[in-house]
Amino acid sequence: MLENIKHPTTRNGKATFNLILRAAEMLFLENGYHKTTVADITHKAGVAAGTFYLYFPSKISLYQHLLLDISHTIRKEIASKIKDKTSRRDKEKEGIKAFLEYAIKNPHMYNIIWESFYIDRALFREYYESFSKRYVKGLQAAQAEGEVDDIDLEIVSYVLMGITNFVGLKLILDLGDEPKSVDSVVETIIRILDHGLFQKNA
Amino acid sequence: MLENIKHPTTRNGKATFNLILRAAEMLFLENGYHKTTVADITHKAGVAAGTFYLYFPSKISLYQHLLLDISHTIRKEIASKIKDKTSRRDKEKEGIKAFLEYAIKNPHMYNIIWESFYIDRALFREYYESFSKRYVKGLQAAQAEGEVDDIDLEIVSYVLMGITNFVGLKLILDLGDEPKSVDSVVETIIRILDHGLFQKNA
Repeated sequence: MLENIKHPTTRNGKATFNLILRAAEMLFLENGYHKTTVADITHKAGVAAGTFYLYFPSKISLYQHLLLDISHTIRKEIASKIKDKTSRRDKEKEGIKAFLEYAIKNPHMYNIIWESFYIDRALFREYYESFSKRYVKGLQAAQAEGEVDDIDLEIVSYVLMGITNFVGLKLILDLGDEPKSVDSVVETIIRILDHGLFQKNA
Repeated sequence: MLENIKHPTTRNGKATFNLILRAAEMLFLENGYHKTTVADITHKAGVAAGTFYLYFPSKISLYQHLLLDISHTIRKEIASKIKDKTSRRDKEKEGIKAFLEYAIKNPHMYNIIWESFYIDRALFREYYESFSKRYVKGLQAAQAEGEVDDIDLEIVSYVLMGITNFVGLKLILDLGDEPKSVDSVVETIIRILDHGLFQKNA
């Protein structure tokens, strides 16, 4: 489905390529994908109109590139933070923290990711399905070690993605009454994942 | 913030009002809020162009009405399903089930709710903040009864909303490999809320 973009090879080309990407990102954030034209993007980037098509066959191909780029960056960010942890529980804790910290530093990521729901539903599906698949792999290994219960891991992956995404929204949009630190929020989440939410008097 | 809409009083008026709402809902789903004009809505509803303004001062006021309406309907739906349950755990279980069942019957609800993120961020904030506040109230009562741990309930509310929303997406968009029943999914979620996810060997 992904239209081929042409990656720049020279230093100048790379700089132009990135200017175009950053300009598009800002415009998608301000005006949304649909209202942003290729002409708006090249104008904002300060490059000639035709330059866009040296790299991107279309606006949607640029958007797909942004989406893939976010997905890779988040994964790399998480992977680098959890690599020294041995238990799945500690990996999860650091992974959630890494995601939330990334989200706070890059609040526009929600805009880019969620707009796929409206731009092309297939991209939205692919984004979360592929995240889910990787999550399940990690959880399967932990299940084999007896560290995670015998439980439907695909559903667990959506449970965990839902938690991090919604708690991330709370932090980024500063929803509710008081701001909260990433650390305190991670403690609350991991406590639920450790012990559940309800007291065991039932 | 909410512009006043004028509710119909006659039976004919109510029918027209609803025709306009359903037409708008379909168009928002197909083309998105921004690309849908008031003229599109009245045309699709099969009513005279001026009729729209008998009830709605603007397109955004109609959208706000749809959003509030979904919010009220979901709450009513959940409230009716949990009213016979006494423990918070059972209320939560039935509430999650009611939400997922409502979402499956009304898959357009995600479109309407999440598009507020792009239409007017304040509406998105208000939607989830008000859901969170009600959630916290219920959880506080359960905490006072010793049924819920001494834990940050506002974060818990976002954890729970995140779980239901993302698992709902999985069911509605049929993400992943195999379809799953609402009951099996609810069992998985409630098991995590009962016992946590990780084995207690740590």
